[in-house]
Amino acid sequence: MGDFDVCFVNDELVPTASAHIGLTDRGLTLGDAVFETLRVRGGRVIDIDGHLARLRVAVECLGFPAVTDSRALCVALEDTRAANGMVEGVLRLTVTRGAGGRGLAPAADLRPTVIVTASALPVRSPGFRAVTASVTRRNEQSPLSQIKSTSYLDNILALREALSRGADDALLLNTRGCAACFSAANLVVRRGAVVMTPPLADGVMPGTVRRRLLEQLPIREASLTVAELALADEIIATNSLGIRQLVELDGKTLSSEPILFGQARAVYDALT
Amino acid sequence: MGDFDVCFVNDELVPTASAHIGLTDRGLTLGDAVFETLRVRGGRVIDIDGHLARLRVAVECLGFPAVTDSRALCVALEDTRAANGMVEGVLRLTVTRGAGGRGLAPAADLRPTVIVTASALPVRSPGFRAVTASVTRRNEQSPLSQIKSTSYLDNILALREALSRGADDALLLNTRGCAACFSAANLVVRRGAVVMTPPLADGVMPGTVRRRLLEQLPIREASLTVAELALADEIIATNSLGIRQLVELDGKTLSSEPILFGQARAVYDALT
Repeated sequence: MGDFDVCFVNDELVPTASAHIGLTDRGLTLGDAVFETLRVRGGRVIDIDGHLARLRVAVECLGFPAVTDSRALCVALEDTRAANGMVEGVLRLTVTRGAGGRGLAPAADLRPTVIVTASALPVRSPGFRAVTASVTRRNEQSPLSQIKSTSYLDNILALREALSRGADDALLLNTRGCAACFSAANLVVRRGAVVMTPPLADGVMPGTVRRRLLEQLPIREASLTVAELALADEIIATNSLGIRQLVELDGKTLSSEPILFGQARAVYDALT
Repeated sequence: MGDFDVCFVNDELVPTASAHIGLTDRGLTLGDAVFETLRVRGGRVIDIDGHLARLRVAVECLGFPAVTDSRALCVALEDTRAANGMVEGVLRLTVTRGAGGRGLAPAADLRPTVIVTASALPVRSPGFRAVTASVTRRNEQSPLSQIKSTSYLDNILALREALSRGADDALLLNTRGCAACFSAANLVVRRGAVVMTPPLADGVMPGTVRRRLLEQLPIREASLTVAELALADEIIATNSLGIRQLVELDGKTLSSEPILFGQARAVYDALT
């Protein structure tokens, strides 16, 4: 990925080209891992505390043993950024439960694997078109719907469907038919002066940017049916890499003034 | 795992201790992979055709590119078995979508990663105790519920809950409250002379042994509520590694004569 050719694996910085993990790592064998995607802007890792707080909740929920402390993860992120001379870009922090034998039950002596990789910022336009995924539903009855785990295949399926239908992204519904998220972003909806986003209980990832927006803008948490979405004046997608404006949903154009987009963008741009 | 120290990665047999994959493999980063667990008995890989047929359905559903043909996978499995001198044991075949960059959308030029690892047979008693998982539900509205993918964390969560409650395994319900499976096995239930197993549409993995049992025993596919399970005389768990008898479910002892267990065991023992 461009010039970023150094990564961090467990306790050291290594050339990405030769970096690797063993075949028994449960991150590979069972999707038994969590991750965070962090924006680097102006040489600074944005909202590192927010990301590490979310990661800590995730590994506690999953019961990972002897998790590396947040300070060490902070250092790993900053060291990887610096080693790559990254001013603008993306860091991904992955923590797996560790390397173990066959079977689902983890061995008692696992040590988590910690990986940080560096990538260029994706090139994308702020406007995007989405279709509602029909191939799968997000499972709001699983705690994984609120954990950024590497068991990510449902969202990949939804995105594949969207791309095959000529759209840029998929809107995922939960098993009750309410909107949950885009394939890798939260959604926020404006209807007139009312701004809403689905509650976490609807199978929503607790996005770091979603949280900042809830803190700083008058946004109500409310379940949103497909019928309610069709009445929206404006819909935005938010994640750690930015704010995007939905310009078309299931073939219907959204052309209202980007009021919410502007407000959210201002909050995002002010994050440190 | 014991004496089995040779594995297969892409096109070659390598010592397991030094075998590895790169950090950008989507099997590691996104749980974007499928696998099969195969029993080796008497030096023979059992029901290899059944496993490879299921794998093919899975990779087609997920849209993996340029999947290695079944004959090559057969050879990889047999070569790994032979290189380890395995007479009794377990082979695991993993196929990932390949190594790619950041983000959910796969690059166009991916080549699947093929891995075969070898392990000793797990030591376990034929009888086991289970509790119904409360931590999560199986999502029968996702095609992944019928695909043996490495996005496996829901089942790990359920098993962790069961172990923490002093049981050996978890029974997973689907989002509608019907029984779907154990953490890594199908279930078959006998009540009097009637034998039933949940249909695939209930979020059930199309188990290779389940299929053979349906072919050879008078088993009806029917949704099973928790209340119906409580009326069962006998419940068994089936997967490629064997047949087990449930002796206790949620604290209630099942002590009927193991009629179904005996019949299923005979079918399993005759598999080639």
